[in-house]
Amino acid sequence: MLTVVYLVAIAAEAMAGALAAGRRNMDVFGVAVIAFVTALGGGTVRDLILGRYPIGWTQHPEYIYLVISAGLLTILLASHVHHLKRIFLVLDAMGLVAFSLIGCNVAREMGYPLAVIVMSGMITGIFGGVIRDVLCNQVPIVFRRELYASVSLAVCLLFLGLGKAGVAPDLNTSICFAFGLGLRLLAIWRGWGLPTFSYRQRWE
Amino acid sequence: MLTVVYLVAIAAEAMAGALAAGRRNMDVFGVAVIAFVTALGGGTVRDLILGRYPIGWTQHPEYIYLVISAGLLTILLASHVHHLKRIFLVLDAMGLVAFSLIGCNVAREMGYPLAVIVMSGMITGIFGGVIRDVLCNQVPIVFRRELYASVSLAVCLLFLGLGKAGVAPDLNTSICFAFGLGLRLLAIWRGWGLPTFSYRQRWE
Amino acid sequence: MLTVVYLVAIAAEAMAGALAAGRRNMDVFGVAVIAFVTALGGGTVRDLILGRYPIGWTQHPEYIYLVISAGLLTILLASHVHHLKRIFLVLDAMGLVAFSLIGCNVAREMGYPLAVIVMSGMITGIFGGVIRDVLCNQVPIVFRRELYASVSLAVCLLFLGLGKAGVAPDLNTSICFAFGLGLRLLAIWRGWGLPTFSYRQRWE
Repeated sequence: MLTVVYLVAIAAEAMAGALAAGRRNMDVFGVAVIAFVTALGGGTVRDLILGRYPIGWTQHPEYIYLVISAGLLTILLASHVHHLKRIFLVLDAMGLVAFSLIGCNVAREMGYPLAVIVMSGMITGIFGGVIRDVLCNQVPIVFRRELYASVSLAVCLLFLGLGKAGVAPDLNTSICFAFGLGLRLLAIWRGWGLPTFSYRQRWE
Repeated sequence: MLTVVYLVAIAAEAMAGALAAGRRNMDVFGVAVIAFVTALGGGTVRDLILGRYPIGWTQHPEYIYLVISAGLLTILLASHVHHLKRIFLVLDAMGLVAFSLIGCNVAREMGYPLAVIVMSGMITGIFGGVIRDVLCNQVPIVFRRELYASVSLAVCLLFLGLGKAGVAPDLNTSICFAFGLGLRLLAIWRGWGLPTFSYRQRWE
Repeated sequence: MLTVVYLVAIAAEAMAGALAAGRRNMDVFGVAVIAFVTALGGGTVRDLILGRYPIGWTQHPEYIYLVISAGLLTILLASHVHHLKRIFLVLDAMGLVAFSLIGCNVAREMGYPLAVIVMSGMITGIFGGVIRDVLCNQVPIVFRRELYASVSLAVCLLFLGLGKAGVAPDLNTSICFAFGLGLRLLAIWRGWGLPTFSYRQRWE
């Protein structure tokens, strides 16, 4: 099931990336690149840091074709997609949770310590958007936005906790998925966010 | 022959990088770094993604000295280089094509699938400039500019197609080189570009 | 001794990173990420480029906890830390020198050539700040600021030179540490900097 969710999620992330590229007036190539890194960049950074070769998508060319197609298709559909805002937010939330769970699993199977497993989940869930924003020349929105990274963190911790408590993997995944999706949608609906830190003094 | 073209090309890319650093008023160290990443950053990203260790330039210190020298030399020559605009554009075009062909070859020899081979060529050809622009705090010009990435793509596809058709490697390289160089110069001369995608709606 | 200096240094770098995040009004998560990459990003880039797996901090979760704690603590202490400017500058200088020496050592033990050893030291010393600035959407300050990267370069060269001359590793480290720290503090005090390169002509 996680695979289907994953495919839907990378397509949705690619579309969101394409829209970000459009806000910067990029050409078709730029749109394809931003769609790609938004969808598959998080997993790539994770694999680089964990030393997991070959990197996931290099063995699955179909992922490459999927995300680039989704990105380019977005250009044609752009005038309509804003009607789909709610669907997008749900797909994005599903992607966040699915990516986080996949990232945790990858690091756990490689025997990394707890803190690295959690970071692996969060990197997979979030870093595609970070690279997208860096390439679009803006401060990554995930560092400032409402409850987003925290959902990834909460999902990873719950997943590891339930795993320790002996819950079967499939059930664990389902519970974490439902929990993460609910938490994320609740955060959007209620406008929940983390406290921000503003520092004005310049003394360097 | 590709090696000579490669050396000329990394020197030219380093000089272009140094000029970009000068536009940001960087100091001598900044110039050296930007020259380095412009010239060798694309190959580095490719090697990281393909898991090809040790990374090329770490085994060829002479490349390091070459690109840093070329970058620093540019500071001295800066008041003259704009007279050399045309030569620069030709050298840059040669670099783009040579890098693309080298990148294709590397991934092909490692047995990666077709889509990854093409991406490897394009990353080698283009990502040095992407990192340069990110470090100079601007949206990568290759995502918005005229026919540049597309030349890399066309060269990679032609190279793989002719290879499949049984054309000998040396002849294949020569044909692709001439084709890519011609296409790129034609694109500059005619001002060819890809359609761009502008998206204004903000609904996030 | 270098280990103690290292721990103090990564904590200090994390705190400096947290302040940079505060200048961008990031939320708590953004602060933690920027603290992390400022402190451990340089070593991560070094390990990626040298192909040194597993990456340092993935085997030392205590480093992860340390830098994230230091970053978050900075939020609470922010109104006071500017009184500590001088202590910060000294800690930062110690970090720069310690990171550089560690980076040299790592590449030397892996048998890389001289130029790569020096680059490894400089990347370890400097690239955490580069990634921090990229994520904060500004041109890396180390490419424009006073004598900073040059201190790293001088320390690396002295370290390798004394090593070649047969000076025992411990003594060598101590000499280089004192030299680098003194040079950096002198540079701050005197306002020493490298010449900058300003290039205005736009001909692309």
